[in-house]
Amino acid sequence: MSFITNLTHKSWTSMKMRFSKSNPEKKLFTPGPLVCSQSVKEAMLRDLGSRDGEFINVVKLVRQKLLDIAEVSPEEFTAVLLQGCGTYAVEAVFQTCTPRHGGRALILANGAYGKRMKKICDTCGIPSDMFEFPEDGIVDVAKVKELLEKGVQYALVAVVHCETSTGSINPVEELGQTIKQYQPQAAYLVDAMSSFGAVPVKIQNGQIDYLVSSANKCLQGVPGFSYVIARKSELFKCRGNSRSLSLDLADQYEGFEGNGQFRFTPPTHTLLGFLQALQEFQEEGGVNGRAKRYKQNCTVLQRGMEELGFCKLLSRECGGYIITTYHYPNHPNFNFEEFYCKLCQLGQLIYPGKLSNANCFRIGNIGDLYPSDMKYLLKCIGKVLDAMDVPVPVPVPAPICLCVA
Amino acid sequence: MSFITNLTHKSWTSMKMRFSKSNPEKKLFTPGPLVCSQSVKEAMLRDLGSRDGEFINVVKLVRQKLLDIAEVSPEEFTAVLLQGCGTYAVEAVFQTCTPRHGGRALILANGAYGKRMKKICDTCGIPSDMFEFPEDGIVDVAKVKELLEKGVQYALVAVVHCETSTGSINPVEELGQTIKQYQPQAAYLVDAMSSFGAVPVKIQNGQIDYLVSSANKCLQGVPGFSYVIARKSELFKCRGNSRSLSLDLADQYEGFEGNGQFRFTPPTHTLLGFLQALQEFQEEGGVNGRAKRYKQNCTVLQRGMEELGFCKLLSRECGGYIITTYHYPNHPNFNFEEFYCKLCQLGQLIYPGKLSNANCFRIGNIGDLYPSDMKYLLKCIGKVLDAMDVPVPVPVPAPICLCVA
Repeated sequence: MSFITNLTHKSWTSMKMRFSKSNPEKKLFTPGPLVCSQSVKEAMLRDLGSRDGEFINVVKLVRQKLLDIAEVSPEEFTAVLLQGCGTYAVEAVFQTCTPRHGGRALILANGAYGKRMKKICDTCGIPSDMFEFPEDGIVDVAKVKELLEKGVQYALVAVVHCETSTGSINPVEELGQTIKQYQPQAAYLVDAMSSFGAVPVKIQNGQIDYLVSSANKCLQGVPGFSYVIARKSELFKCRGNSRSLSLDLADQYEGFEGNGQFRFTPPTHTLLGFLQALQEFQEEGGVNGRAKRYKQNCTVLQRGMEELGFCKLLSRECGGYIITTYHYPNHPNFNFEEFYCKLCQLGQLIYPGKLSNANCFRIGNIGDLYPSDMKYLLKCIGKVLDAMDVPVPVPVPAPICLCVA
Repeated sequence: MSFITNLTHKSWTSMKMRFSKSNPEKKLFTPGPLVCSQSVKEAMLRDLGSRDGEFINVVKLVRQKLLDIAEVSPEEFTAVLLQGCGTYAVEAVFQTCTPRHGGRALILANGAYGKRMKKICDTCGIPSDMFEFPEDGIVDVAKVKELLEKGVQYALVAVVHCETSTGSINPVEELGQTIKQYQPQAAYLVDAMSSFGAVPVKIQNGQIDYLVSSANKCLQGVPGFSYVIARKSELFKCRGNSRSLSLDLADQYEGFEGNGQFRFTPPTHTLLGFLQALQEFQEEGGVNGRAKRYKQNCTVLQRGMEELGFCKLLSRECGGYIITTYHYPNHPNFNFEEFYCKLCQLGQLIYPGKLSNANCFRIGNIGDLYPSDMKYLLKCIGKVLDAMDVPVPVPVPAPICLCVA
């Protein structure tokens, strides 16, 4: 097997060079994984037994604290943690909360993460309808009302809160009220992956039954698990629905309630990191404190980018303060790959776009980032444009800007 | 919402006391999560962007190295990483590798993890048969041969290599040869969760199509992802089978091959820890080096436990050197909860039993453990028995010992 040995030897040598600790750390201006505080990462420097009392207590505290942040009572709601990434938790709600036969789901989509819900339903064999809205806008409550009046009965209606593919913030509370008014039988799922903990949502007011998020978003943990804030009365109806054992939310809940443990091996280190992240979240002032810093970050970013001539995809009414999508400048010297790589060389990691029909890129401002980090990023962007010989303010084609207020 | 605030305040105060870094670390004699080296944990002190070249290279190296450890060629096999725990990867194989309609699975079970496969099939709606063998023995090749001759055609046949519920080692290579002889159409899945990297398996000789394991087992990473060593020619037949998007192994593979990335957010820190773990695995001498240390650990443990009078569940022929199951002593003063807690207070974490009909406990010897750790554990067990007023050698009822060689 010499071909493998040779390959491996070469790979490891290369690895040692690439991953030496002397490499400068990059700042991540992405929608996640994010920059985490050093103390969150250091909390992972312990090995706990997954069935031991100490870890069971970590799980209990994390679940309690999530309900606290969601401002719901433990009598009515429960927090179910799930190993794996956020998409797993979204799928777990679809798997668990639609009946095996006959239940139909409605997806209100205005971007890639809404569309992913449709793909989940198609793969799981869940009958579903997707109602699409433009990617440069938000889900329109009046249109949803019209749709719900038509009489197709749904078991589950789902929407994304902050559509990470653009940064738009959907009116999830108004949507929930409308859904429950016209289709009280339907459970209501909000994918709050990129917003929970930083963009206030009143679960009770929005009549939300399932809210999904992930450890490595606005609560600033490291990636490795996701969670669902679930209305118990709804979840209790769902036993036996799931077509997946791993993603059976009702079974996972019963595991926690039975002996305080995950059913299957949990990412113990990630949970320890998250507990530390929750403490830092509280110290920053909870949702309001975190929102304040993210807004400051976003203001610095958007002002700076405007000065550089960049044009946002979304109007002020549609966009939030989590991630901002920008059109490519309209200049022959601008090439996104080059722009990305040169910024990367300066330790600044931005994110490509995820739109169906427009050339965009994204800059996130969540995670352990501060206004000074945003200012430094802007300085680097200026330098890179200069190096690429793209004039500042950058030229943007007029028609694309029509969508911006 | 004062009840929540009060609860939380109390919880956090209690948390700070419980999880202060001054707590002595416990040694984990469990089947996982295990004790990891400090350097593996320290490798997690970095934040990488999941779509960035540096992380893509980490993923590439990890996938290459897993094939190298499995001693298979990248032309024939591929390593597919999957976010989440080991059970997810086992389910992913069942989800992906049985057709949506008409494919039947056969499970050869001699313990809890075999039975879990049956639960996976039942939940996923995969028609299946489970052929059970006694928990204190191994899967009998001759009986499997008889069963396969009967003519029921299977799409997938599955067995656990090291049954973690007892520690037994099933003859997966002989089984594979028999399966392929009588049912060449069947894909063959080996759950090598607790053995891969420490108990040699010849994938080619055993005609194994899918071998599953997890980051936090014998390769000594932290928990957070699992992986499947998959025969490409088999996997390629499986597109569109999975009833779960998250657990679709074929789609996950195509994601890696397409752009080198996970389809959905990966546990970046866990991957960094694993890369370091792989380096330490290589430095220890690969499978042989790791097997040598684990055997030494196991020998120290089993000799010491024998001197203390404890009686093993399995005969020498059935048991391996990963985890050992012991019967409770037959003495009125012995109470497992107390035994466990007192050992825990001494920083030694053992594991409860997982048998249908016998009172047992388990002691693992995998992870960053050395013979000196096993000796210290034995000393602590002696102390605890003394404190519980259980005489040494501990009395064990004769009939239970009949199964032991």
